[in-house]
Amino acid sequence: MGFELDYIFHPQSVAIAGASESPDKQGHNYFKNLLEDFDGPVYPINIRAESVLGQKTYKSIRDLPTDVDYVISAIPNRDILDLVDACAEKKVKTLHLFTARFSETGYEKEAELERELLARARKYGIRIIGPNCMGIYYPKVGISFMSGFPKIPGNVGIISQSGGNASEIIQLGASRGIHFSKLVSYGNALDLNEADLIEYLADDPDTDIIGGYIEGVRDGARLVKVLREANKKKPVVLLKGGRTDAGTSMVSSHTASLAGQREVWESMCRQTGTTNVYSMDELIDAIVAFRFMPPATGSNVLVGGGSGGRSVTSADECEEEGLTCAAIPAEVHTELSERDSFFGPWVNNPIDGSIMGGSNLRAENVLEIIAKNPAYDVVINSIGSMGPWMGGTTDPNAKPEEEDPRTRRGRRMLERTLEVCGRLEKPLALVIGDYLPSDQRQLESAQELRRQVMESGFAIFPSIRRASRAIHRLSTYYTRRDKL
Amino acid sequence: MGFELDYIFHPQSVAIAGASESPDKQGHNYFKNLLEDFDGPVYPINIRAESVLGQKTYKSIRDLPTDVDYVISAIPNRDILDLVDACAEKKVKTLHLFTARFSETGYEKEAELERELLARARKYGIRIIGPNCMGIYYPKVGISFMSGFPKIPGNVGIISQSGGNASEIIQLGASRGIHFSKLVSYGNALDLNEADLIEYLADDPDTDIIGGYIEGVRDGARLVKVLREANKKKPVVLLKGGRTDAGTSMVSSHTASLAGQREVWESMCRQTGTTNVYSMDELIDAIVAFRFMPPATGSNVLVGGGSGGRSVTSADECEEEGLTCAAIPAEVHTELSERDSFFGPWVNNPIDGSIMGGSNLRAENVLEIIAKNPAYDVVINSIGSMGPWMGGTTDPNAKPEEEDPRTRRGRRMLERTLEVCGRLEKPLALVIGDYLPSDQRQLESAQELRRQVMESGFAIFPSIRRASRAIHRLSTYYTRRDKL
Repeated sequence: MGFELDYIFHPQSVAIAGASESPDKQGHNYFKNLLEDFDGPVYPINIRAESVLGQKTYKSIRDLPTDVDYVISAIPNRDILDLVDACAEKKVKTLHLFTARFSETGYEKEAELERELLARARKYGIRIIGPNCMGIYYPKVGISFMSGFPKIPGNVGIISQSGGNASEIIQLGASRGIHFSKLVSYGNALDLNEADLIEYLADDPDTDIIGGYIEGVRDGARLVKVLREANKKKPVVLLKGGRTDAGTSMVSSHTASLAGQREVWESMCRQTGTTNVYSMDELIDAIVAFRFMPPATGSNVLVGGGSGGRSVTSADECEEEGLTCAAIPAEVHTELSERDSFFGPWVNNPIDGSIMGGSNLRAENVLEIIAKNPAYDVVINSIGSMGPWMGGTTDPNAKPEEEDPRTRRGRRMLERTLEVCGRLEKPLALVIGDYLPSDQRQLESAQELRRQVMESGFAIFPSIRRASRAIHRLSTYYTRRDKL
Repeated sequence: MGFELDYIFHPQSVAIAGASESPDKQGHNYFKNLLEDFDGPVYPINIRAESVLGQKTYKSIRDLPTDVDYVISAIPNRDILDLVDACAEKKVKTLHLFTARFSETGYEKEAELERELLARARKYGIRIIGPNCMGIYYPKVGISFMSGFPKIPGNVGIISQSGGNASEIIQLGASRGIHFSKLVSYGNALDLNEADLIEYLADDPDTDIIGGYIEGVRDGARLVKVLREANKKKPVVLLKGGRTDAGTSMVSSHTASLAGQREVWESMCRQTGTTNVYSMDELIDAIVAFRFMPPATGSNVLVGGGSGGRSVTSADECEEEGLTCAAIPAEVHTELSERDSFFGPWVNNPIDGSIMGGSNLRAENVLEIIAKNPAYDVVINSIGSMGPWMGGTTDPNAKPEEEDPRTRRGRRMLERTLEVCGRLEKPLALVIGDYLPSDQRQLESAQELRRQVMESGFAIFPSIRRASRAIHRLSTYYTRRDKL
């Protein structure tokens, strides 16, 4: 299959069964978003209202003046079989069911309805997305399921069995500089499943990185094949829901999937070169690494940017996450000692910037000198996001920022650091603490800092541990890829 | 020893050797903070300037008009022995050395200077804090080392071998609603060490929870004894720097401590009832749990507040962190089914709020009904911090918030949820995603939400995983305490 699914993402026309005037209804959101952004006819179907959002409605798909490619169903499940019949009459190619309450309820009547839905759609040659899902977000052509989503397209393709997790991926992603080529929330995976969608995204020229949230596997053997082929072309990062007994039990009442054993999944990921993650944060972190860092195949890390205590905890966290915080080579110590005989021999990895006051060395230059050495494959540099030098304070009686020379000094240091970071010809991650300061000035500074660093195209992580874990995944992927 | 150290925290007068007019110097910060907030004589010592911040200076401690209790040294290390002699003449009880570059440099000359410093201070009966540290932050009496720190006292006592980590604990803590009784940054621990300080805080009536960042152990046998006694009275949470080889190597160039083996530390923590954590985030999370949650001694958790995908990942994360996401007891399913025969039997733990649309059940009421059952020891409830219902949007062309009924609806739901949470008579944690939204409106909503929830006195965590890990530590502490 694979790229032949492309027609699903490029309908000429769309109808929404259950388009509604009420913003409380999801049938409203689908219609409103398409009306605003989709470049083609969009038909509201509503059995009662004469018009929705000022557009004339149709009582049924059957009443449409022409055939239609793509139908979104936001009607109750009891009317679903008739809708499929109507879709067939209008030569519908794809039916997306936001409509839920099928097999996931655990009730036999609803499960039987789902089986009949599939049988009928297959008979007519209609492909089904869902049921029980949010469907497609494809910003380039103006298909979306929530009005707040970014309209800027990107190069990350996502499949998600959960609509809520899909929304979280989009919004967490946006806050980290990640934008999306195509995203599919595919719910119960009755027809189109994880293997179909990953195979498609692997061939999709708009997609450079594939991410996913998967609860169940419909066809294990095929998924293994698809993942191995996909990972040869681009990284696939997957979060598996239902790793524990409680998670597995929850999966069955969410998307009626069989979650299976954690160990089986982990070994499957290793064999297919798939990057396996354990939380939404890890999913986004791994995507950030693949998106903003060049390939890394080694795990020797140089760490900079912290003072003493931070240097110690950084070393521990890097090593605990599988990186090696390698000692500074003798020839580099010699070079540093020539510049400053007192501080040169004292410098360590991580680089403790706080010891260099009054010396001939500056932390950012030391970083550059050491990073050049081939002993290091990758660099992590911390940039503080708190403290008075950021222009903020937790003191409500503090005087205006312009009075604090530490703020100016902090900014100059940041600029010099980013300059050096831009020159390092190695994979680089920057760490900026991700917390919500209570003070407004500090918050604005933190946002400004983040914006500035993100616009420079650097990979940003909220902690050394999360950066290290993502980098370890990056280098594991590129190391394994050659053996696939 | 123990509480006899109390005099160190209550000097009648303070002198700052190296008080400076320049805000770039730490000798400026110490003097300025004390001048503003300390209720007693504060003497600036400066060999060159006639005055600092409008106050007449003295050339030496020897020139002071009276004796002085407490001296802060911000002068170069070469003058330190003379300073100790001068302190003896003025009957100084405590000398805190911000002054650094002693044994941590790795050089013999500096290590010898440190040994002589200790010998001389011991001869005169002067206690030393440091060297190479920020010293005391004690908001109640106005002692601080950075002007931005909160002036509100709290009930958490901290010891930290690193000044940078101490600052981070104070600022991260403030953003999580944590305030401090006393904090000591104690650097090289030449005289006063981790055991002395923990013993003191264990007896301190202002301190209910002890937290710490420790790099090295000066006297292992004594620390074991002190920790066991302390944990009988109040929880002690420790982050150990130098768990890995790279971390250990960094420790020696930071505070010249011997870090030792990870396994030894972990077993010592288990035996003494100490809560052992692996990052600054985990340290703050554990403190938040001890500060805002009542004792929990079981690990059966009920989880609410998420939709389907979030419910699945929550179940997995709770179980992976050592909690048990126990199935809903039959009698509770019966009660729920009496209220709604379709949804009642379908409800699971975690509670998927998204399935209940159109039913007689509301997620928050279902939470309350299930939480009453003795099968559950503790409750975690997620509160979303993103999405259009929060009043924010990532769409730059979005219309003003008052037009979006989802925002109003979201607020009402939040109020009802907090009401229910307030009534649950069980240890409760709330999860609010901790990310910096790029949209200003969403950011303000997120801050407002956090403020509202924090002011209600709830324990807040940024993810289910972090909440679960902290709760597991809480219940482990209270379970172990009875066996100490």
